[in-house]
Amino acid sequence: MKYIDLTHPFTREMPVFPGDAYPEWKQAATIEKNGYNVVQLRTGMHVGTHMDAPNHMVEGGRMLSDFPPEHLIGPAFVVNAFEKPRVTLNDLDQMALSQVSIVLVYTGWDRYFGQEIYYRDYPELDLEFASALVEAGIKIVGLDFPSPDREPYAVHKKLLGNEVLIVENLTGLEALLPYQDIEVMALPARYEADGAPVRVVARVGQ
Amino acid sequence: MKYIDLTHPFTREMPVFPGDAYPEWKQAATIEKNGYNVVQLRTGMHVGTHMDAPNHMVEGGRMLSDFPPEHLIGPAFVVNAFEKPRVTLNDLDQMALSQVSIVLVYTGWDRYFGQEIYYRDYPELDLEFASALVEAGIKIVGLDFPSPDREPYAVHKKLLGNEVLIVENLTGLEALLPYQDIEVMALPARYEADGAPVRVVARVGQ
Repeated sequence: MKYIDLTHPFTREMPVFPGDAYPEWKQAATIEKNGYNVVQLRTGMHVGTHMDAPNHMVEGGRMLSDFPPEHLIGPAFVVNAFEKPRVTLNDLDQMALSQVSIVLVYTGWDRYFGQEIYYRDYPELDLEFASALVEAGIKIVGLDFPSPDREPYAVHKKLLGNEVLIVENLTGLEALLPYQDIEVMALPARYEADGAPVRVVARVGQ
Repeated sequence: MKYIDLTHPFTREMPVFPGDAYPEWKQAATIEKNGYNVVQLRTGMHVGTHMDAPNHMVEGGRMLSDFPPEHLIGPAFVVNAFEKPRVTLNDLDQMALSQVSIVLVYTGWDRYFGQEIYYRDYPELDLEFASALVEAGIKIVGLDFPSPDREPYAVHKKLLGNEVLIVENLTGLEALLPYQDIEVMALPARYEADGAPVRVVARVGQ
């Protein structure tokens, strides 16, 4: 049994979605002056590896703080869509779908994280792919790219409108490919917010 | 098997440690204007249920982003120190200590969360208690009160100086008392920071 971290570090040089504000870090206390360090962070909640709650796209939708641990931890499988610009129903093993509550989509796009292309030419999920996840009662879908779609966000709305949480900007999903038995924990702090940075960890093997 | 959430929600009315700045929330995008909601949050990283990394008190110490999942997930037991103003070596079952990597200290102080008394008269850990955790190789100690000690922070320094992470402001630890078999997951987002809000979840029973 071992753990695999699927999370980009949230550093001082985080890239953001075009148009979003960059995070600002402020040293609010120092060991020299106060006896301890405290950093203050001002950031949009959709930076780096983060989770979208329904409220991100659904008027009056639920916040991250509304979701219990049962929704955030569970058996997972990986859709291997390496280098595909669109992820379609053909990429989905529907048998495997019935065994899990979390689906991770591997495209390898995380290699461009921090480059301009990352937020420009990223792959998308087909609406039919998203609908199949909803039908199967999937609770979380995780992506190694920045968004499941573009305006007008039909895939986002399909998923979030059906309480399927979306994790964006994962990394290192290829490390999971050799494993059948995968448990994923995606635990955001309990913010009353439409999204937040999240640590995503997989436990694999026996 | 079931999950128990030990995390205070991070709401719009969060109390903070006296002298710290209150979190500020800003609606950076709305569904009406932008097609989606995005909240921007400005906050010190030691608000609500949060984790201290060594860098909080140790010059040049490690950040949260430096700790792998193995350090953040593990078997746990609860020290029952209900209503005790000081938690001492006598409260610690040293046999149980050898079976776990995470220790949670239950005092019931979380009932005062949001009241002035909460940050004023909170209980403390004895230095000898902290030393025993260090000796046993414990990786995380979690408290249902705001800090293991007061100035000059000898307990903080003992723990953090030995890479024992501290989780402060837990809630609901009494729900764990009936259980022997407890696994705790304390996963902060992967911030390059001295601390951060964290979701803490226990998995109990069989």
